[in-house]
Amino acid sequence: MGVHDSVATIDHARYTADNCSIGRTLEIIGERWTILVLRESFFGVRRFDEFQRNLGIARNILAARLQTLVGAGLLERRRYQERPERFEYRLTQKGRDMYPAMIAIKAWGDKHAADPEGPSVTLMHGDHEFAPDIRCAECGEVVEARDISPIPGPGAKLKAVG
Amino acid sequence: MGVHDSVATIDHARYTADNCSIGRTLEIIGERWTILVLRESFFGVRRFDEFQRNLGIARNILAARLQTLVGAGLLERRRYQERPERFEYRLTQKGRDMYPAMIAIKAWGDKHAADPEGPSVTLMHGDHEFAPDIRCAECGEVVEARDISPIPGPGAKLKAVG
Repeated sequence: MGVHDSVATIDHARYTADNCSIGRTLEIIGERWTILVLRESFFGVRRFDEFQRNLGIARNILAARLQTLVGAGLLERRRYQERPERFEYRLTQKGRDMYPAMIAIKAWGDKHAADPEGPSVTLMHGDHEFAPDIRCAECGEVVEARDISPIPGPGAKLKAVG
Repeated sequence: MGVHDSVATIDHARYTADNCSIGRTLEIIGERWTILVLRESFFGVRRFDEFQRNLGIARNILAARLQTLVGAGLLERRRYQERPERFEYRLTQKGRDMYPAMIAIKAWGDKHAADPEGPSVTLMHGDHEFAPDIRCAECGEVVEARDISPIPGPGAKLKAVG
């Protein structure tokens, strides 16, 4: 299995996983409601009541998840009305940068976790259905795990010796 | 912001988010240790002790997370030795299909959640550094949220009327 050819290229026993980018991202979006709130933002939703109605989520949970996303800098809270004061939640650039991860997660779920009838949402790209293709930005090739070798990055940290 | 042009294309208030592919995928990989175990699998790790050593995770938590991934069909548990009995955990096709999501999640984390020194792991694609490029599989264009319109899919379900 080519996937496993890369095992010798990094000595994972020596480096800590504490600052892993994957783990850190999941700390933000790993909670189910948080990513569904973010999904709604990508669908164009901005207002509390619309998030609430679309997701059928308790208001206190929604408020907490919006706060998580604002605190993490993925959404920004902006006042759009003065009397009475009303706020909306808009994607920041940092939030918009989550889009590739969202559609890659959706593609996996569509293939492996959808109901028998199929996915609940279809994404259209102009006149055709959208499916993501992950390519190497440098050379344009479609990549699979077996093509990629992990090596210690600039932020690699050795494990503390016990 | 073009992101929001698509808001009128699906009436989210009418459809339930209960069977959302994104939510369902996060139910599996949303827990931090689970995705780090999966990360190790992509790095080529197969054996309990190697997962344990690399992640510095308590053995009972590791056993539970491996069981989650086996139960969800992303890893399979195979005996590789009879006396004493020893098992290894290998990615299934369903598990390998998570790779695009993993690298998209990593790319976001590398950009927005890494330490000041940079990412802890660099991915190499042959002789060059790998960065993912998400394109439309149909037409090959690089896509952003603003280019995509969600519409009800074949599995869209109307909300129960209260």
